[in-house]
Amino acid sequence: MNSDLNQDRGDYVLGLDAGGTRTRAVLATHDGSVAGEGTSGPGNALTVAEPGLTDHLAEAVARAVPERLRGRVAAVAGGFAGASGTADEPGRLRARSALTAALRRLGFPPVPVAVWSDIEVAFASAPGHPADGLALVAGTGAVAARISGRGCTAVADGDGWLLGDDGSGFWIGRAAVRAALRAADGRGAPTALTVSVGRALGVPEDVLPYEGTAWTRSRREAYRRHVLPAVMAEEPIRLARLAPLVAEAARDMDPPAEAILVEAVGQLTETVRALQPHPGERVVATGGLLGPDGPLTVLLTARLDALGLTLDWVADGSAGAVALARLGI
Amino acid sequence: MNSDLNQDRGDYVLGLDAGGTRTRAVLATHDGSVAGEGTSGPGNALTVAEPGLTDHLAEAVARAVPERLRGRVAAVAGGFAGASGTADEPGRLRARSALTAALRRLGFPPVPVAVWSDIEVAFASAPGHPADGLALVAGTGAVAARISGRGCTAVADGDGWLLGDDGSGFWIGRAAVRAALRAADGRGAPTALTVSVGRALGVPEDVLPYEGTAWTRSRREAYRRHVLPAVMAEEPIRLARLAPLVAEAARDMDPPAEAILVEAVGQLTETVRALQPHPGERVVATGGLLGPDGPLTVLLTARLDALGLTLDWVADGSAGAVALARLGI
Repeated sequence: MNSDLNQDRGDYVLGLDAGGTRTRAVLATHDGSVAGEGTSGPGNALTVAEPGLTDHLAEAVARAVPERLRGRVAAVAGGFAGASGTADEPGRLRARSALTAALRRLGFPPVPVAVWSDIEVAFASAPGHPADGLALVAGTGAVAARISGRGCTAVADGDGWLLGDDGSGFWIGRAAVRAALRAADGRGAPTALTVSVGRALGVPEDVLPYEGTAWTRSRREAYRRHVLPAVMAEEPIRLARLAPLVAEAARDMDPPAEAILVEAVGQLTETVRALQPHPGERVVATGGLLGPDGPLTVLLTARLDALGLTLDWVADGSAGAVALARLGI
Repeated sequence: MNSDLNQDRGDYVLGLDAGGTRTRAVLATHDGSVAGEGTSGPGNALTVAEPGLTDHLAEAVARAVPERLRGRVAAVAGGFAGASGTADEPGRLRARSALTAALRRLGFPPVPVAVWSDIEVAFASAPGHPADGLALVAGTGAVAARISGRGCTAVADGDGWLLGDDGSGFWIGRAAVRAALRAADGRGAPTALTVSVGRALGVPEDVLPYEGTAWTRSRREAYRRHVLPAVMAEEPIRLARLAPLVAEAARDMDPPAEAILVEAVGQLTETVRALQPHPGERVVATGGLLGPDGPLTVLLTARLDALGLTLDWVADGSAGAVALARLGI
């Protein structure tokens, strides 16, 4: 790289992490120090239509980059949910088109724009900004990827809530309701999890199976009659909001809750193993289930350790997007 | 019963089996011989709105009962999907209202009408028209019920495709696609089931894993790229249509297909066991998975036999509806 040329083209870079619930933009100096930040609405390139996607990107970028610095940005990189796959796939095309339009709208001069997937920028966010290894996302959904030369070369799971995302927040939330319904119809026994799931779904207090009271057939049937329509009235993916109840019950040693988390970790381990990891490889994880206080962090670290793998966690992909933008200078 | 009185009120009875895909009406003489039959569209009392439900019931009844016999029907009984629970629940109320309106529209004089659930009439269809025992439905969905004095007194599962219906046709179809996706991403290995599932979902022939050809990464990824949107483009419940592919593969000893059927039978057995069966009890089954050539019939018969239970199968509930109508005379 030629520093005179950099000076000509500008001394800042812009990185974006555009996820299913939030878009984050980070302005950084050419040595990587953060100079501005902005967030906005959803940025999934497959599920958010292009006008809305452009709006969200423009909003986040406008907040991160003051007008006077817009001519001094040398490179832009964005990681998008829904933009895995090759450069000609619909998500990547839409992401590139929306990002270019957003920059133009904000008065940016022409600038190199790189489009990556959310997984690629998350992986690049790990300490040292690695180029090769494994990435694991465990939030509402679950997917693992092999990253080679900064790009994703293989994927395991990420099959969505209906068919896969095994071990994800959705999966854990659904397992919690399943355990509760099984307790109610006699295929299991009620526990604290049955109470917390029922309460979260609006089951009346006098129907819940509190310790020391008999859970009679009529109360069990009333429980089922409340839970089933409460779940069906919402989008299936909303079951993911029940995952924290499982984590809480497991902390109190609730047996079904502990079993659900152990099974979730087994599923995520299997997903990572499908990518044929080499001992000594690094797994960069992101998503709420695997954060510093995440309900699966301790269990999964131990499982991966037994395979000779180390687990790093990153909060989001914006640092990686900045690092990848710097590569574009 | 007073046979003079019967003669006054008419010498026929009418039974209906109103299911999720079809409504069937059967006219019978007072000794139970079939005198007329008619079928029509869906009759689920919860999911079909009242005007449509009334139309379907009227159509089936009009085909089963010639106009000249409509004054000679002494009692009517209908078993409705979506009409489990107590008499004041929405499905039961709508079923009664629609059936009464259909009879009035066809010129029937006032006649006693009894509303039952589809499970209750299926159970009553077994040889000898029993009043007590266990019923098991295993078709697109799966539910078991305890029947006491002809009425349902407890239910296990039937929780719908999102949360339960374990071991059902939907469950088997989803398991087939899951196995196929796991083969494609490295969590499993391809088999004949991977081929048949892929073909049913429109995967191009040159991407399918035929024996003797290497299933390269690019072909495996192309397989996933076809399967995922093909499934997501349809209603989830449509996955049930893939269940016959699992049965076919299992007949050819495909290991994942066999494992899926064994697990389905385990789930259905657990559902029956939740109702605390007594040795010697009869389980009356209905639904395509458990018919004379059903893919689960042999396996489930063996599992229930080990619990001291016998399995009877009925094709539908119309014979039971006739038997229950005769009780109403």
